[in-house]
Amino acid sequence: MPEMHGVFVVMTTPFKENGEIDYDGARNNINWYIDSGVHGILPMGATGEFAALSLEERKKFTEFVTETVAGRIPVCVGAVSQNVSTTLDVMEHAHSIGADGVMCIVPPGLGVNQEEAYAFFKEISDHAQLSVMVYNNPGSSGVDLEPATLDKILDLPHMDYIKESTGDIKRLSLIKDTMDDKVTIFCGCEDMAMESFLMGAQGWVCVLANIAPALSAKLFELVTVEKDFDAAWELYRKVLPMLRYIEGSGKLWQVTKYAMDIQGHCGGYSRSPRLPLTAQEQADIKEILNANPLY
Amino acid sequence: MPEMHGVFVVMTTPFKENGEIDYDGARNNINWYIDSGVHGILPMGATGEFAALSLEERKKFTEFVTETVAGRIPVCVGAVSQNVSTTLDVMEHAHSIGADGVMCIVPPGLGVNQEEAYAFFKEISDHAQLSVMVYNNPGSSGVDLEPATLDKILDLPHMDYIKESTGDIKRLSLIKDTMDDKVTIFCGCEDMAMESFLMGAQGWVCVLANIAPALSAKLFELVTVEKDFDAAWELYRKVLPMLRYIEGSGKLWQVTKYAMDIQGHCGGYSRSPRLPLTAQEQADIKEILNANPLY
Amino acid sequence: MPEMHGVFVVMTTPFKENGEIDYDGARNNINWYIDSGVHGILPMGATGEFAALSLEERKKFTEFVTETVAGRIPVCVGAVSQNVSTTLDVMEHAHSIGADGVMCIVPPGLGVNQEEAYAFFKEISDHAQLSVMVYNNPGSSGVDLEPATLDKILDLPHMDYIKESTGDIKRLSLIKDTMDDKVTIFCGCEDMAMESFLMGAQGWVCVLANIAPALSAKLFELVTVEKDFDAAWELYRKVLPMLRYIEGSGKLWQVTKYAMDIQGHCGGYSRSPRLPLTAQEQADIKEILNANPLY
Amino acid sequence: MPEMHGVFVVMTTPFKENGEIDYDGARNNINWYIDSGVHGILPMGATGEFAALSLEERKKFTEFVTETVAGRIPVCVGAVSQNVSTTLDVMEHAHSIGADGVMCIVPPGLGVNQEEAYAFFKEISDHAQLSVMVYNNPGSSGVDLEPATLDKILDLPHMDYIKESTGDIKRLSLIKDTMDDKVTIFCGCEDMAMESFLMGAQGWVCVLANIAPALSAKLFELVTVEKDFDAAWELYRKVLPMLRYIEGSGKLWQVTKYAMDIQGHCGGYSRSPRLPLTAQEQADIKEILNANPLY
Repeated sequence: MPEMHGVFVVMTTPFKENGEIDYDGARNNINWYIDSGVHGILPMGATGEFAALSLEERKKFTEFVTETVAGRIPVCVGAVSQNVSTTLDVMEHAHSIGADGVMCIVPPGLGVNQEEAYAFFKEISDHAQLSVMVYNNPGSSGVDLEPATLDKILDLPHMDYIKESTGDIKRLSLIKDTMDDKVTIFCGCEDMAMESFLMGAQGWVCVLANIAPALSAKLFELVTVEKDFDAAWELYRKVLPMLRYIEGSGKLWQVTKYAMDIQGHCGGYSRSPRLPLTAQEQADIKEILNANPLY
Repeated sequence: MPEMHGVFVVMTTPFKENGEIDYDGARNNINWYIDSGVHGILPMGATGEFAALSLEERKKFTEFVTETVAGRIPVCVGAVSQNVSTTLDVMEHAHSIGADGVMCIVPPGLGVNQEEAYAFFKEISDHAQLSVMVYNNPGSSGVDLEPATLDKILDLPHMDYIKESTGDIKRLSLIKDTMDDKVTIFCGCEDMAMESFLMGAQGWVCVLANIAPALSAKLFELVTVEKDFDAAWELYRKVLPMLRYIEGSGKLWQVTKYAMDIQGHCGGYSRSPRLPLTAQEQADIKEILNANPLY
Repeated sequence: MPEMHGVFVVMTTPFKENGEIDYDGARNNINWYIDSGVHGILPMGATGEFAALSLEERKKFTEFVTETVAGRIPVCVGAVSQNVSTTLDVMEHAHSIGADGVMCIVPPGLGVNQEEAYAFFKEISDHAQLSVMVYNNPGSSGVDLEPATLDKILDLPHMDYIKESTGDIKRLSLIKDTMDDKVTIFCGCEDMAMESFLMGAQGWVCVLANIAPALSAKLFELVTVEKDFDAAWELYRKVLPMLRYIEGSGKLWQVTKYAMDIQGHCGGYSRSPRLPLTAQEQADIKEILNANPLY
Repeated sequence: MPEMHGVFVVMTTPFKENGEIDYDGARNNINWYIDSGVHGILPMGATGEFAALSLEERKKFTEFVTETVAGRIPVCVGAVSQNVSTTLDVMEHAHSIGADGVMCIVPPGLGVNQEEAYAFFKEISDHAQLSVMVYNNPGSSGVDLEPATLDKILDLPHMDYIKESTGDIKRLSLIKDTMDDKVTIFCGCEDMAMESFLMGAQGWVCVLANIAPALSAKLFELVTVEKDFDAAWELYRKVLPMLRYIEGSGKLWQVTKYAMDIQGHCGGYSRSPRLPLTAQEQADIKEILNANPLY
């Protein structure tokens, strides 16, 4: 059994209207996530608006999360950066504060090729003192870790997890088919979660868990533990409208935070370059949640 | 006539084998660029490996460039970052040291939508004290500034230039056709330079000028000043093999630096995540340069 | 329970070296398919090289297939054409000879828009006297039947089946989620068959059944009837290398026919524009089949 | 100087409301095209709705066009089909009636690979008795003739012309740069015509000439003969709004025919699967033509 598995909430970072991080809100959220049964937490992902924080803020917030979680569930820290040294720095810091893993992607937007992608993860591996989740998301990095490249990367020490975000279920099946002995697969596509569990994903880096942590965990368990696919499908159908709205809106952050707010949790504000929702979008979200209550 | 126009060398940043910036090499390069007739210089672009430098290094190198140039040609500073505050910081710094412009793109890899792209440039505009080159490169940012969005952006103060890197000449023609009164177009596609000049580009953010500054400037002038298209085409044909090799190699940085080195200038090393060229690639480059001497 | 469901072999059309259709070979193949347990047969699909036959040949071959099958399993006839009248003609002929259904796609390569796609199926529906399988394959038609368009199409009489070939499992899930009451879903992606069954496909328009009809039928039944997913996965893993080879080769026809030939069935030759396999490709196929016997 | 060059109107096929071909209308159109100065005519292209005609109709209409033209300008006949034998048949027929050339593309929508694409044109070449225009349009055929493939094709007898419809000006420049000695380039992208002329296209397979034949011919001549680029640009700007509307509408046929009708020529009806314009679209077209009269 892998150390990290199940639903990892890729937590939002709540901001106050003045742009400061809302630590009280974040604390309440974290406790609610854990009480609701999520299996892990991933701060400083794209959902957590990592890029809008300075390196100091990233570290401070990560420390806060790790302390608040206090060992109740594993913590995996997002370490994305266009600068390789920053990624290494974030990784070392995560280890120093007792986090369980880091999530790394090739420097986004720089046209990294396959050989350089391997060399990047080799450099990560050489410095790693904790588990690494290899994150493949061509849509955000501009680079697809091709199967042959990934296969080599997964032979490196500490490369224990893959977050699969190509959006192609066939890729996940291929990894399960050919690399299953050396990696644990996390689903990284919100609206492909059930499909991914059915084909072998043992985890989910999950935006939805910010809105519906209990339901997200339940969906995972229905498929992978109870193997009650009919019940899972009925549950999945309840969340698909919201998942599709999130994916289609281009406003993942704002939708997620608004859905948290109207349920009494702390979504809060976003930082630049994110814009607020329109009144129409807010109404749409309310309508979806009314038609498909996520609990 | 616009303040900035012509061939702007998007200069490489030479590193020593130990990873330090080679300031002596950079100084020689800058003087060579200027003596060869380039019309401007753009440090800290993607070609300049901006992402591999810390913010402090970016600022220090930019100061060095500005001082070395000493007003002989305009300096436009790359201000790309996933973090909006960093972009604003770089812009303010560029102004403070006497640079002539900054080049800004939406935070790459974050799924910014059209409204957010506009808001981003509005924020840039609100803080700007110098000219801004709006950089549209969907391949690196993951976002295409659609014509309607760009048109609104160009109405904002300081938004005086567009660097067009969609790779679609029709887009450049559309900008020329519909927004010509409010913007100066720079070509941002190496292997579409002559096409761009012919359709109205008045500038070129140019990688080739690192290897062949005199020839790059000559190509621009043949088309836009002398209007000798036959001579321009003959010259273009000499550089197309190298331009196509650069675009096709996935190793723009290394190819450019190696071609500088073998001509006696300072290409130097690259930082992570860039890998060295193979012996075969080096031989290919020599063969191209022998077959098509770039002077 | 739908009339048509399960594994429909999208049968190859065997040609002799002189280009004539090999009717004896086709008869033996058909009987073998049926004896092996396929649930239906689909002549004149892309796999059947429909485009290489004249309209007269298409009709004659379809009659032959229907007579040979003689009611043992359902027959669904491919009715693809760039010419709408031809599609209508093929459909009427299929009905007249007692076929059970036709498979229709928008005229490929003509830039049909969504409204025209609907109007096309409306015209099909107006003339139909048998069940229609709506075929959505953007890769071959150049047009994606968007969910809203498909939803309207499925409200038309006779539009009872969808062959889903977008390659995106999320699309199949969406159809299952939102249109399940009015359509039976057939998987139309070879290397996404198990994924599709798990998410609700009740049929498979299946190339593999030309090579391994019993195994293809078994895979379907393990998932949809016996619900033994572990056994299904083990079986799927045996066929994935061949499925991936077929999809990756760009030579679906030739690979399938060669694999038939070396198993003692009648693959035969192909017509222009298909080229023969290379010796290396033949060796690759033998190696895959040796490593993963498909029975 | 090549035999075929200049503006070839890719003529629409006018239909009556009952679906019959309007030969009187077509005759008037042809005479108008010629009197307006187009340099050639191309019946049975995609713009001519070739796919909506039976093979007999195609031949009859082509004969009619050739007789009507009566040698005043060259005739190049569209020979597109998913069936190779049909393409060969159309080609032989075109030669037999005295046409000057045929336009051939790989069978669309069939996933032809590069080797098969070459073999297809080899087969065409082996049967050809007249000039062939190789048509590369990945958007409609699903296949891109890669430069290395095209280079080999152009070494075959009769392969004298390329219609470049990738939409990428860099491809056209590459062909001009590396294959200029063996091919005459025709522009096949309406809204990239001036760009193509500037980079070396000596012809234009032109939809616009159905609406504005004199102006289309003038644009070509201003660039390639008179070399008055400023005048050409002013003219181009007049047609760009219409060209962009045509490309963006997804209704090339209907827009073109309606613009013909309101100018007093014979646009006429279209056949299935084309739908009529909406009243709004008709109003848009009138507005564009009023703002930019095309004469």
